[in-house]
Amino acid sequence: MITIAIIGLGLIGTSLGMALRTADEKTSPIGAIGVVGYDVDRRAAGDARGRLAIDRAAGSLEEAVREAHVVVLATPVQAIRDVLQAIAPLVPQGAVVTDVASTKAMVATWAAELLPAGVEFIGGHPMAGKEQAGAASADPNLFKEAIYCLTPPVHASQNALDLVEALVTSIGAKPYYIDPVEHDAYVAGVSHLPFLLSTALVEATTRSRSWKEMAPLAASGYRDISRLASGDPVMHRDICLTNGVALTRWINETIEVLLRLREQIEAGDAKRIEALLAEVKRSRDAWLDTRPNLRPGETDFVGEQEIRRPSLFGRWGPNKKG
Amino acid sequence: MITIAIIGLGLIGTSLGMALRTADEKTSPIGAIGVVGYDVDRRAAGDARGRLAIDRAAGSLEEAVREAHVVVLATPVQAIRDVLQAIAPLVPQGAVVTDVASTKAMVATWAAELLPAGVEFIGGHPMAGKEQAGAASADPNLFKEAIYCLTPPVHASQNALDLVEALVTSIGAKPYYIDPVEHDAYVAGVSHLPFLLSTALVEATTRSRSWKEMAPLAASGYRDISRLASGDPVMHRDICLTNGVALTRWINETIEVLLRLREQIEAGDAKRIEALLAEVKRSRDAWLDTRPNLRPGETDFVGEQEIRRPSLFGRWGPNKKG
Repeated sequence: MITIAIIGLGLIGTSLGMALRTADEKTSPIGAIGVVGYDVDRRAAGDARGRLAIDRAAGSLEEAVREAHVVVLATPVQAIRDVLQAIAPLVPQGAVVTDVASTKAMVATWAAELLPAGVEFIGGHPMAGKEQAGAASADPNLFKEAIYCLTPPVHASQNALDLVEALVTSIGAKPYYIDPVEHDAYVAGVSHLPFLLSTALVEATTRSRSWKEMAPLAASGYRDISRLASGDPVMHRDICLTNGVALTRWINETIEVLLRLREQIEAGDAKRIEALLAEVKRSRDAWLDTRPNLRPGETDFVGEQEIRRPSLFGRWGPNKKG
Repeated sequence: MITIAIIGLGLIGTSLGMALRTADEKTSPIGAIGVVGYDVDRRAAGDARGRLAIDRAAGSLEEAVREAHVVVLATPVQAIRDVLQAIAPLVPQGAVVTDVASTKAMVATWAAELLPAGVEFIGGHPMAGKEQAGAASADPNLFKEAIYCLTPPVHASQNALDLVEALVTSIGAKPYYIDPVEHDAYVAGVSHLPFLLSTALVEATTRSRSWKEMAPLAASGYRDISRLASGDPVMHRDICLTNGVALTRWINETIEVLLRLREQIEAGDAKRIEALLAEVKRSRDAWLDTRPNLRPGETDFVGEQEIRRPSLFGRWGPNKKG
């Protein structure tokens, strides 16, 4: 049996626990598992237990990780450094540590710096989420068919890769290997920039003196474009702090487009406005037409043998604690 | 029986026809109706007929409006001027002309300038829509519970107001009287600005050389924030052209917020970033907590007598054509 420790029982940590625990151990690539959960907020651990996301709530970080084969860090990004430092002397030799944070380069640096030899780190980032935080919004199907980025260091062992990949596929997600720096640049554009634009929309409109009169006219368009602004401020603060260079670049790109639009609007340039809007519509429709969650190079046809893998880990266990 | 002519059979025109024709004439405030439809594109008229949005497709503008009690203009904004000019000599005396365009001040000016005495114009704008254009996406429930802005001129007659209000309530929408210039400033913030931000996101990301690698990582956040960018380019071009001043102001406000965010990100100012994101989350959550489509001053409790009104128009008919 594989023991998995989940540190941080918010939306993702709790959803992950639920997904792991509802997988059929006979067919799941990771086999039989036990899930231990820990959160600095004891109430969060209680909520996760209530939602059957964990078998057991640990009373301390040490209790959570000391028998773990896999440790999943599901705290906000900035907290990961402290947690890595705290668990470094506690994690059993041979265990694998992974995380689910939205930025990967900084986390990889911290892990390389803090974890002892014999404890491998494989960064991870499921491309799934919700704007509501906390265990109450957790969903065991959150990761189904989602792309799950894995950003292993070059020297990662096959065993560690296999184990994390089994964890990912057992919750119905699709592992996608990518360099951590590349990952951060890309998600800055398709995930963090949308959040910032959602935030900018809400800030610009709600601080207006006319907001009270405007608000009733806000309909489904406003609701959807403002959705991400309801996300967790701490999680997004940490994203801003750990992915600043890429984000700054995307903010500049967006301002450039807005200035171009403003210029065309001021000039009343019907032709250029329509050309830009038509081009953007084509691009967005083309993206939407691709099958969601298709990894680069992946075709629409996925054979059975590619989905089902025998459990590699029925007999897997970590080395005894040294 | 009231004859309603719908000019322009895209998403809104067709949805409106479907909504009007599915209302129960015994309880509907507008009573028994007949709907005539016209579109410059004959295929669009055929599609609308196929979806039972109209009783009859007219072969010309003249045929569409010559017996109409109400004429609804559902073309893109810029086309409204030409249509008003064309129908001015054709509309029966006593008929009421309305529209469903997203901007109201310019349309009101055109109507005052072009329509003859004895034909009243009451501008309208249902706060409902979809990014997919055309009859195929039409939905008779599109207007249910939606706020429907009405921007009558000060000299509008009670008869004309009653008639348009009956049309609005018969499709399940909620009439909301507002000054056309105020309307344009407000919807620029809550409707047109979200569209432009959605467009800016798609333009900035899809033109990137890394788009092919980024696209698979785009998940539900990107999908939702980019949704409006799939809207009709011609409709939005016309919105940009007829609501430029307000839009320019909102673009400037948004750029100001983005620059502030960029500065905080570059400074790694965790405190100020978190404060801004938390404030924005509060504002957005507060907006979401209000009942959708509640007009200013409207309470959550709406008594039966406020919803159901006797039909004022069972015996209503326009003056004979002069």
